[in-house]
This record gives sequence, C-alpha cells and structure tokens, in this order.
Amino acid sequence: MDPRTREHAAVLVDWSARIEPGDNVVLQVAEGAHDLAVAVAEKLGERGANVVSGYASDEVTRAYLRAHDGDFDEDPAHELALYRNADSVLFLGGGRNAAATADVPGEKRQALARATEGAREARMATDWVSTVHPTRALAQRAGMAYEEYRDFVYEAVLRDWESLAGEMAKLKEILDAGSEVRIVKEDPDGDGGSGPSRRTDVTMSIEGRTAVNSAASVAYDSHNLPSGEVFTAPYAAEGTAFFDVPMTISGKRVRDVRLSFEGGEVVDFAAGQNEDVLADLLDTDEGARRLGELGVGTNRGIDRFTDNVLFDEKMGDTIHLAVGRAYDACLPEGEEGNRSAVHVDLITDVSENSRVEVDGEVVQRNGRFRWEEGF
Amino acid sequence: MDPRTREHAAVLVDWSARIEPGDNVVLQVAEGAHDLAVAVAEKLGERGANVVSGYASDEVTRAYLRAHDGDFDEDPAHELALYRNADSVLFLGGGRNAAATADVPGEKRQALARATEGAREARMATDWVSTVHPTRALAQRAGMAYEEYRDFVYEAVLRDWESLAGEMAKLKEILDAGSEVRIVKEDPDGDGGSGPSRRTDVTMSIEGRTAVNSAASVAYDSHNLPSGEVFTAPYAAEGTAFFDVPMTISGKRVRDVRLSFEGGEVVDFAAGQNEDVLADLLDTDEGARRLGELGVGTNRGIDRFTDNVLFDEKMGDTIHLAVGRAYDACLPEGEEGNRSAVHVDLITDVSENSRVEVDGEVVQRNGRFRWEEGF
Repeated sequence: MDPRTREHAAVLVDWSARIEPGDNVVLQVAEGAHDLAVAVAEKLGERGANVVSGYASDEVTRAYLRAHDGDFDEDPAHELALYRNADSVLFLGGGRNAAATADVPGEKRQALARATEGAREARMATDWVSTVHPTRALAQRAGMAYEEYRDFVYEAVLRDWESLAGEMAKLKEILDAGSEVRIVKEDPDGDGGSGPSRRTDVTMSIEGRTAVNSAASVAYDSHNLPSGEVFTAPYAAEGTAFFDVPMTISGKRVRDVRLSFEGGEVVDFAAGQNEDVLADLLDTDEGARRLGELGVGTNRGIDRFTDNVLFDEKMGDTIHLAVGRAYDACLPEGEEGNRSAVHVDLITDVSENSRVEVDGEVVQRNGRFRWEEGF
Repeated sequence: MDPRTREHAAVLVDWSARIEPGDNVVLQVAEGAHDLAVAVAEKLGERGANVVSGYASDEVTRAYLRAHDGDFDEDPAHELALYRNADSVLFLGGGRNAAATADVPGEKRQALARATEGAREARMATDWVSTVHPTRALAQRAGMAYEEYRDFVYEAVLRDWESLAGEMAKLKEILDAGSEVRIVKEDPDGDGGSGPSRRTDVTMSIEGRTAVNSAASVAYDSHNLPSGEVFTAPYAAEGTAFFDVPMTISGKRVRDVRLSFEGGEVVDFAAGQNEDVLADLLDTDEGARRLGELGVGTNRGIDRFTDNVLFDEKMGDTIHLAVGRAYDACLPEGEEGNRSAVHVDLITDVSENSRVEVDGEVVQRNGRFRWEEGF
C-alpha cells in the first residue's frame, strides 16, 4: 500500500469526519477504493468506531437499474434505517471505469433518486464526507499516468488544512461583511472583432448571505476531501461571465460557456461545444437560470483541471459560479435561496488578467489575495 | 462474465431466497464476488426488490479488528437497524485470499461476535442464504486449477433442486419416523493388529427429532447454496466413529479423527494430525463433547473434498457428525437440544464398505439409498 493512503485515511477520519469512539460509521467503498477502505478501517478500529461497510459499485448499480422497471419503492426501510442510525457516512470514491453507468437511462437514475429522497436526506443529516481514491480509471479521465495521478490526488488531499482554514477565514469575513461582488477578467485575445468575447464582467449581490469556509471538515460544514474553497449564495447577477474550463454536463463535454445575466437571470448564453446540453440545463426549471453559488477555489495543491468537479472547483486561482440550487448553509435561517433540481458548477481561471472586487475594493488580483500581496 | 454466473444468480434469487417484489435485500459481497454481485443485482432489479449492498471484505475486517482494542460496543444501532428491516440477506462469498484474516487473534473475533450477537440474530431471522463465487483463492485451497474449480462449483450449484428435494424427502420421512440410527463402516485395511482401527460402528437416538430436507432454499429451512443434505439432531451416541475426510479446525488441518462415545459423550478420541486442536475443541464446553448433528450428504454434483465445509458436508455418499450445538429446526417446540459455543462437522466417506441403518433396517449401503437399489 502507498504510505500516502494511510495518511489520506488519517486526514479523512480525524480532520474531516472527526470520528469519535462509539460513532456509528457507514463506509461506502467504490470498486477501486479497496486499499483506502483497508486504511480507513484501520483508523476506525483505532478510534473505536462501529463500522458497516457498503459496496458502492457502479457496475452493480448499472445492472440493477437497467433490469428494474423503474417503478421504485419509496425509501426502503432497511436503507432508511441504516442511515438514520448512522453518525457518519464516508464515501470512498474511485471507480474502475468512469463511464460504467453510461448506458443507464437518465430517467431511471432520476426515478430512483426521487424515490429514495428520504434516504438521501438521512445520509446528508450525518457527518458525511466524500473523498476519492486514485484509480487508473480516474487517471485516464484526467489524461494522466497512474503514478502521476496519485501524486496529484495526494498533493490535493494531504494539505495543512488547519492553516488553510485560517487563510480562508479571512475571505469568509470579507464576503460575510460585503454586499456586492464583481468579477472581472479581461479578454487576453480581445481584438474587438474576430470571434466572441471571452471577457468576464459580472456583478452580484451577496448581502445577507453567509460564506462557508470549506476546509474539508464537518467542523466547517465542509463535506469534501479534498476541499479548499470559500463559497456563498449570490443573487441579482448582472453582466457577462465566460468560463474557460471545460466541464462535463450530463455526460457530455461542454466548452467555452458564456452566460449573460439581467436581473439575476440568464438572458443569453453560448457554448463553443455542445451548446444544446447547456440549453437543456438552463431549461430544467426556473432556478436553473439563476445562480446558486459563487465559489473561490483556494487549494493550491490542485494545479490542473482533471475533469472531476470534486477537484476542479477547489483549484487555487479559480472562481466558479453554479447555476441552480443554493446551499442552505449560506442562507439566513428561514430564508429560501434559489431552488432548482440542478446545481452545475462552471469554472473560470483567474490566475491572469483578473480581479475580484467586494464593494469596490479589490480582494483578489490574478489569483493572489489582498492579505498575501498587501494591496 | 461466465454465463453460469447468471444461472447461479437466478438459482440464488428465485429458488434459494424466493425474492419477491418489494423485498428489502442486503447483498453482502466478498472481495472476489464482484461478477456474481452484478448478476444478482440484475436479478434483484428484475424482481423489483430493494437492495443495500455491503462490502464483506476480509482485508477490511482484518484491518479493523487488529486496530481495535477489543472492547466492542454492543450491537451498533445502524447495523442492527439494517438487518431488522431486511427481508433477505444474501452472502456472496469468494475471497481473494482464504488466509486473509490469519493474523487476527481469535479472541478479538470472538469478542466482536459476542458484542454483535443481536445483529447476528437479526440477520438469521431473515430469509438469508450463503453462497460462494468461484475465485482463484478458493481454487487454490481446493488444490484445483481455476477453470477446473469453476466447473466444480457450478456442477454443485446448478442442480435440479426440485427433483433432489423430492429424493431427500424420502430420507427425511424415514428419519422422522425412526428411533435409532446406526452407522457402520468396515476398516478396509483392518488386519487386527497394525495401526489404529479405522472402523466406524456408532449408534445414536433420533427419537422425537425432526430431519431437515436441506434443498438449498429458505422454503425448506435451508440456507446454503449449494446444499444437498438431510440432517437431524441425534443424542445418546454409543460406539466409535472414524472420520477419513481431513478438516480445517481453528485454521489447522486435522486428519483421521476417531471419537468414542458412551452415553452420548465423547470418552476417548484421537487424531492423526493436530490432535491438540481436537482436544481444545472438545474442551470448549460440556456440549462440545456431545453430538449436535447427523447429516447425510446427497449432492452428487460435489465429487471431491475441497477444504470448504459448505461443499464438503454436502457431498453425495458422505455422512457427517457434528460435535456441539444442535439446530432448532430439528428439535420439538420448546425442547432444548445440545448447546455449545461450537459446531464442528466431521465427515466420513461412506461410498464403500458402509451402511446406515434406521431401526435395524438398511437405508443406505455404499452410498446408494434403499429406494435407488430396491433393498
């Protein structure tokens, strides 16, 4: 076993999930995550937690879904009872084929999700954490060699989280106190004529909203490992945003997305590839045309895009805006934010020609923060 | 996938577990049983059952147990709730290393078993079935090539169970009506002098006991696939039994066991190898020196011993006696049979020089039954 797998397990159990003696833990193990499961089980044994291990196999799920007639029972009692009696759920991702469920009709997947909404809520009510074990399938999706990809994953996961949490607290403080965010990125190739503008200049309100310091720990309302982002729930967006990072939406690659906002709503859009997928997304429901999230990636252990949103949106020197559902953690008690059946992150690289302003003051310029550069 | 894996899944789901629409099923998947899990999930989807998949990994269990201090919580709520709300539990065995837990101290395993006795009872209260997917590790333990072992397993599993159940019903009828069983096997090498006698001549009472027609289906109180045995709970054994099939007891190979009974209790014993393991077994508790089971193997698809009791004790033309715990299904309502913390099967080949008598009438001779041969 790669010695970093044990370090990964220690971060997951101690920093992220804060497992304590007597905790009832559900360990969900993807097909390729066996080694991490062994390392996590060792840590859980040391801590005196109680473990039920689940087999989160894409191929088992595919076979079941394809064979089922689609009329799923609502929240089967055994599944619901398992999660309702769990303190923590640890998802160890890492498949052997990232396209393993490619031939499962989307409607069937959605029908199962709708039928088991109660079980999902019960899972989300625990101290859950999602992480990923590096597999060859994920390396392939990232366009990387296996050894190279393992280095990439551990660089992202094995951070000094306590120190990063301290850094991110500064940004959270600024966003919590602020009213308006403006994101500007000049178009480097802008020649005022040939091709569409790649320029971003978008403004949104964050008045009354609370930012989450997503430091990869349930103690910070943060449920991903790796994490490394500060996010909030913006509204009333105006202007245009260009997203230069390719995304996979509904299984299809979408590039060079441009969204134009008026009064918080997307009024115009374009994409350089698979624009119809973007159009379908924005047509899902009313909330799909409004923003649900503004996130600032702060994990500088992530140095490239790997077609995996768990990593991509956390990359240092990036900003993401999500259309669709807002997270409750960002909303004042009792207030309903943007609602939608979808939440899709779109990412832009802000390491160059960029600035982020809060109430007219520059907070980040070309990926560097005010407190780093002293501007 | 081997097409027989799908046939195996169909037998498991339809004949053995009798899965119906809406059943809440827990699928426990060993490390090497992935293909069978996929095939079973497909069947469960077709039937409209609801599935929670568990990862029954020996290596995960080993890591957890070794790291734990041994002071286990009693029946963790999430595990208990899962099984209490399940209709069926399907155990898909098939490890990648049959010795994967060899360095886990026995006391720790026993401590966990004691602490989670309630969860075990909840599992056993469902329509549970244990089966096994052929893996290279099991082939190795059986001393067989992988392809050869797969043929062996499917020959044992893919029987005409309905027809075998009909055959076994005849034996059950005889045992249910009978009072006394005598098993005799001549010593083929018996020369009245050199070496210990390998002769068996043992008599036991079965008066008032009920035989189980173990036809690999919960509909027959039978929870193993493959199965193929008729068993009951004998008492008051007298005489000597020799077991020529090697057994693994507490992880050690024990050969050529001889037990002598007086008044139902073992009064003398010997073994050709690891006799101390046998001595420890018999010393476990008072019940460990008395019989808990007499079983007649009837699965002629099993043509050799493979160091796996799930198969060995079902082999056609064999008889097994277990020291230790008796099964409730064989006992009259309210009557307590032999009690013990152990139940260890010892097997003898009765294909030659042998006969089984019930109340003085020969029922089986050299492996052939009365109704087959007309005696």
